[in-house]
Amino acid sequence: MPVLQHLRGLHRQSMPLAGMRIAGCMHVTKETAILIRALRDAGAEVAWSGCNPLSTQDDVAAALAAEGTPIYAWHGLSTDEFYWCIDQTLTMDPNLTLDDGADLIFRAHGGGDGMTAGIIGGTEETTTGVHRLRAMADDRALKYPVIAVNDATTKWDFDNVYGTGQSALDGVLRATSVLLAGKQLVVAGYGHCGCGVAQRARGLGANVLVTEVYPIAALKATLEGFNVSTMDAASAVGDIFITTTGIRDDGAIVCNAGHYDCEINLDDLSELAVSSEEVRANNREHVLRDGRRLYVLAEGRLVNLAAAEGHPPEVMDMSFANQFLSLIRLAREGSSMTPGVYPVSDEQDREIAAIKLQTMGIEIDELTAEQQAYRTDYAQGT
Amino acid sequence: MPVLQHLRGLHRQSMPLAGMRIAGCMHVTKETAILIRALRDAGAEVAWSGCNPLSTQDDVAAALAAEGTPIYAWHGLSTDEFYWCIDQTLTMDPNLTLDDGADLIFRAHGGGDGMTAGIIGGTEETTTGVHRLRAMADDRALKYPVIAVNDATTKWDFDNVYGTGQSALDGVLRATSVLLAGKQLVVAGYGHCGCGVAQRARGLGANVLVTEVYPIAALKATLEGFNVSTMDAASAVGDIFITTTGIRDDGAIVCNAGHYDCEINLDDLSELAVSSEEVRANNREHVLRDGRRLYVLAEGRLVNLAAAEGHPPEVMDMSFANQFLSLIRLAREGSSMTPGVYPVSDEQDREIAAIKLQTMGIEIDELTAEQQAYRTDYAQGT
Amino acid sequence: MPVLQHLRGLHRQSMPLAGMRIAGCMHVTKETAILIRALRDAGAEVAWSGCNPLSTQDDVAAALAAEGTPIYAWHGLSTDEFYWCIDQTLTMDPNLTLDDGADLIFRAHGGGDGMTAGIIGGTEETTTGVHRLRAMADDRALKYPVIAVNDATTKWDFDNVYGTGQSALDGVLRATSVLLAGKQLVVAGYGHCGCGVAQRARGLGANVLVTEVYPIAALKATLEGFNVSTMDAASAVGDIFITTTGIRDDGAIVCNAGHYDCEINLDDLSELAVSSEEVRANNREHVLRDGRRLYVLAEGRLVNLAAAEGHPPEVMDMSFANQFLSLIRLAREGSSMTPGVYPVSDEQDREIAAIKLQTMGIEIDELTAEQQAYRTDYAQGT
Amino acid sequence: MPVLQHLRGLHRQSMPLAGMRIAGCMHVTKETAILIRALRDAGAEVAWSGCNPLSTQDDVAAALAAEGTPIYAWHGLSTDEFYWCIDQTLTMDPNLTLDDGADLIFRAHGGGDGMTAGIIGGTEETTTGVHRLRAMADDRALKYPVIAVNDATTKWDFDNVYGTGQSALDGVLRATSVLLAGKQLVVAGYGHCGCGVAQRARGLGANVLVTEVYPIAALKATLEGFNVSTMDAASAVGDIFITTTGIRDDGAIVCNAGHYDCEINLDDLSELAVSSEEVRANNREHVLRDGRRLYVLAEGRLVNLAAAEGHPPEVMDMSFANQFLSLIRLAREGSSMTPGVYPVSDEQDREIAAIKLQTMGIEIDELTAEQQAYRTDYAQGT
Repeated sequence: MPVLQHLRGLHRQSMPLAGMRIAGCMHVTKETAILIRALRDAGAEVAWSGCNPLSTQDDVAAALAAEGTPIYAWHGLSTDEFYWCIDQTLTMDPNLTLDDGADLIFRAHGGGDGMTAGIIGGTEETTTGVHRLRAMADDRALKYPVIAVNDATTKWDFDNVYGTGQSALDGVLRATSVLLAGKQLVVAGYGHCGCGVAQRARGLGANVLVTEVYPIAALKATLEGFNVSTMDAASAVGDIFITTTGIRDDGAIVCNAGHYDCEINLDDLSELAVSSEEVRANNREHVLRDGRRLYVLAEGRLVNLAAAEGHPPEVMDMSFANQFLSLIRLAREGSSMTPGVYPVSDEQDREIAAIKLQTMGIEIDELTAEQQAYRTDYAQGT
Repeated sequence: MPVLQHLRGLHRQSMPLAGMRIAGCMHVTKETAILIRALRDAGAEVAWSGCNPLSTQDDVAAALAAEGTPIYAWHGLSTDEFYWCIDQTLTMDPNLTLDDGADLIFRAHGGGDGMTAGIIGGTEETTTGVHRLRAMADDRALKYPVIAVNDATTKWDFDNVYGTGQSALDGVLRATSVLLAGKQLVVAGYGHCGCGVAQRARGLGANVLVTEVYPIAALKATLEGFNVSTMDAASAVGDIFITTTGIRDDGAIVCNAGHYDCEINLDDLSELAVSSEEVRANNREHVLRDGRRLYVLAEGRLVNLAAAEGHPPEVMDMSFANQFLSLIRLAREGSSMTPGVYPVSDEQDREIAAIKLQTMGIEIDELTAEQQAYRTDYAQGT
Repeated sequence: MPVLQHLRGLHRQSMPLAGMRIAGCMHVTKETAILIRALRDAGAEVAWSGCNPLSTQDDVAAALAAEGTPIYAWHGLSTDEFYWCIDQTLTMDPNLTLDDGADLIFRAHGGGDGMTAGIIGGTEETTTGVHRLRAMADDRALKYPVIAVNDATTKWDFDNVYGTGQSALDGVLRATSVLLAGKQLVVAGYGHCGCGVAQRARGLGANVLVTEVYPIAALKATLEGFNVSTMDAASAVGDIFITTTGIRDDGAIVCNAGHYDCEINLDDLSELAVSSEEVRANNREHVLRDGRRLYVLAEGRLVNLAAAEGHPPEVMDMSFANQFLSLIRLAREGSSMTPGVYPVSDEQDREIAAIKLQTMGIEIDELTAEQQAYRTDYAQGT
Repeated sequence: MPVLQHLRGLHRQSMPLAGMRIAGCMHVTKETAILIRALRDAGAEVAWSGCNPLSTQDDVAAALAAEGTPIYAWHGLSTDEFYWCIDQTLTMDPNLTLDDGADLIFRAHGGGDGMTAGIIGGTEETTTGVHRLRAMADDRALKYPVIAVNDATTKWDFDNVYGTGQSALDGVLRATSVLLAGKQLVVAGYGHCGCGVAQRARGLGANVLVTEVYPIAALKATLEGFNVSTMDAASAVGDIFITTTGIRDDGAIVCNAGHYDCEINLDDLSELAVSSEEVRANNREHVLRDGRRLYVLAEGRLVNLAAAEGHPPEVMDMSFANQFLSLIRLAREGSSMTPGVYPVSDEQDREIAAIKLQTMGIEIDELTAEQQAYRTDYAQGT
């Protein structure tokens, strides 16, 4: 993660996070460990919980704990334990929060004004979380400013597309070892993540069907050459479904590359099934009443984190560089920002992309003075 | 163009453009003819000039003129004639303008306050034009509101990507009949158009190199698997250059899929060349002093319009539906809008995508009531 | 065509075709002109007819005639004229023949033993022609040896895949200017040509359906991620059909990238149609009795040759280099070869590929002595 | 593996392998277990060794042993143990052999005429093995007939392309969790396996470079749009090397998707390295004298079998169906076949493809009687 390491080195002396108590709620993985170390090196005190019951890498959690960071996370915790963990991080009276899904922010707001009054600001990593926060802000329920790290171009257009695209399919392969070439693979939703999964699945030889509820996204998928249909129609032919409740004749594989496990209706499924058995790690076979078999991966939790290793460090590097710089910005300016959801600045976005290119050894052109002038001289036409 | 035809039918009775005098400056092609007819049917009086010296389809111009619409455009006009044509359309004292590159707006502003005072608003079709208008607005030189049709998702994400992507390469094939498979094809710029050209060129078997000046776009191209380098490095290996002044050892093909012909420095080239000859339609061979040969397509003008037929009607359909609805909005609301550049509304964007899907016979899903509720219920977490 | 030019230079002095009278029956295009000149430079006397009523480029024919080569070909000739042209080339009493579809060979055999006795051998350019010749050989009807140039890897795996792939779609674009992105494009047959068309169509954003009669080819297409179905099923959804008689609800485009026009049943179509009109060059609209419209490109003749310019010179270079060397081999060895269909030698294939790479400036590795030894030392295992 | 199961059912009654003693030497995986059961059900007695020191799935071996089949294989055996295992299977005096790399056949020949005289025939699964056997046959050292299962189209064009293509990259991901998008990935060799790896790597966003020693394959890779260069040039830029000894500045990943571990020169590497450490499962970091780091996956053994699970069952299904039918053919006809390497028959190939399509629920067209007649009627031309 050369970008984050570069920034970590840059801010090690000036300690812009000195005095900051940061509560984080995010997958405890090897990449997150680097982020936590960068935050500590910049002067912050950190406490951490995981944001998904199945995504914690226990060895990483142990290593961080050994370094003195309070870590409230382990693989396979229950829903009660999940919220207990988050609440433990709030006992530090954080003045900054870092979220992946907005569960921590929501929990902090549950603590009443006493809790939120002390918080300067927060950041949010995911599309799902930003949606929740916008709904809170619309409802005037959001009590402090939050930077939507998810919406940075260097996050959203990279992590969501290339990270989820590769790692979701990596999770499917590890959990099933199925040949993707020639399979009918249904992707429910064609946002950034869905687009990434669809593109990579085609790249591995799958025949991809897309389902959508938004016309513009559906049209985009169509012009990319994908089959677009309703889930009902897709269910009749699909072999593999990513993020969906669809069921088809026999032997279908279902998994989730979105966010919460409610994307797949496991309650309905357990009513339809007469038996269920773990046939491989992260792969449960449900035999339905009519004899058909359905394979649910990773209990309907995020297949890329639960069955593979989540997004590769190359893309998390940019996401977490955005987290790091956003927290520094909040430490500096948060007190003067009104509650609401804020975008990452274009400057930060461009800076991160420039550092990334540099660490990859890729040189690009610069506009000449004449070209710069042409861009603003609106008098020049045909 | 089923979307535009659908809207044309919808507004034929209510005549929302009655009393409007619309001056247009846009490529005179078969697709533009449909737009002009839709504007007339909605009640407008129309006068038209072309926005590129080489893009006018003379038979289309003749047909429109025969229908009584004043058309000031022919294939191959000079720069002086080009501006004369635009000025002729201003003699109708337009109250709405429609631009493709902002030449008409700029010319109208040259006419002084007397001219612009009578104009309710305008629309702009292209990235280049929107850039010019933003620069004018920043400079407080823009005197009336303009809707940036270019920036509608149903325009920008479709016309620029799929339209230019296909038609630029179509132009290269018609002008050269070269095999793209195995060629080193250099695309200068990886915005929407450049991305479309790069993707389609790879789809035809070319080995694509991208040059950029913006780090985020350069990084995006890198993660899409393209070679990214400086133009100097690309010039050493490229066989075909799209929108650039690059030159390499021998036999390179150079063309422009951007906007104005200044993207290729023809003056410098004519100084480097000892002779030049039209070897095929729209394909001029320049022999350089050192014996190398360089093929410039369509005199450095837009290769997709000059050497092929421009964007296919399927994508122009959505662009022009945006033009049509934006002009109706301006006719209704323009007088109360302050000067500046306005986006197309999300509703208009979604409406056009929905009509397009419908005309293609593609059905998509709808959110259930439960799903709608989930989207706004920020209390639901893991 | 640097490979053919290289070989032409190589054999200009030794004149290995001196005394040879070569009758050729092949598309009269700019590429064929280079082949004819190479044959003449190598000492041959040449007479030529076209092998398709619509593929002759009349200006090329005129230029060759002006150089003194008898050319019996013009664009748009009738079937009677077609055979008359072939027969004219036989009046030279050829001792070598060159075919593209086996019409000339078949016609020479119709001339009786007196004609074929004088012929040392022939070459055949196409899959269709090789099929015909194998059927003749099986029937003991073939009277002289023929080299199946089509089956050379440097022909078959390149010309058929990349040449037809690009040029068939080029023809569709020139005849229709349709947007391929998002279209349901049906390819009938997944041999080398069909595979090339399918791959390129996907590369241009089309959603490709393949129909086949051979299980292995159908399976290959499936694992490449294409939809595979029967033509009946494909007809219900296809927008564009390449090489097929399929018809669907409305507005379908039908064309042929195979060989003869019997691939599309025009007789049945004319019975189904109530009217027909040429709506663009090479694009005839047929209105069916039930009101649906069907667009047949290039009268069902080869769309890449009739509506575009045929295969690009880069691939014809290798095909014609194979023709050239095969004719030289026949001139040298044909008299001692029994009648039958012969493959191109591996050495010739490799030589042509090596010259091609060299002319493209591409260097490759060589096996070291140790690696060479390892290849033949079967005693070395795990 | 529905094809193999279909054939297993078909031959369970007739027992065409009754009396046959089959020694097999092949990766002991879940797919091989199905093949062994099919052979036993068809009447054969079977003894088995693994064909690679790192590919044995120990649980599969245990399960087969529990069923009474002698299995001489475990994960991580030494070279001496490897040959000892093979020799143990020869103690059954086999009359048929099944190979994956020809080690068993070679070992059987080492046993002298007494051993080979009793063997009716054998089969070989891989390109590497078929090469060895052809070299033996050329040297008149091969003493019994062997069917080259590898060369069946339903094996070679599927298993090698789609199987290796997906599973080699699966192995890289499991051993490294690296992001492939934007990586410079070098594939040494562009045969069926290399082509599959290159295609899938591009599909995952990598920028692929190909090195080759054969001009035709190099040219094919070029026209597919890949960068083709020498390994020296590729070494200067590559991030990941598949099957090669190349080294570049820092942090390169090297692995083998070919056959034997001698594809990567580990002896030279250990001389260049000052230290080496297992940093992840199947991923050893070598620090070179000059400080650069090199990551060798799976000790240079087949990365798809050692780090992932080998080819997915969908493609092994067809390979093993070919094995099964070839052994039945040898049991029936082998005694009357002279020593040598034999191809799989076209009929067997087509039959397997047809069964596979049927099990996938894919219907294809059939030639009509008219079309059948057209194919053999060489008199029909233009």
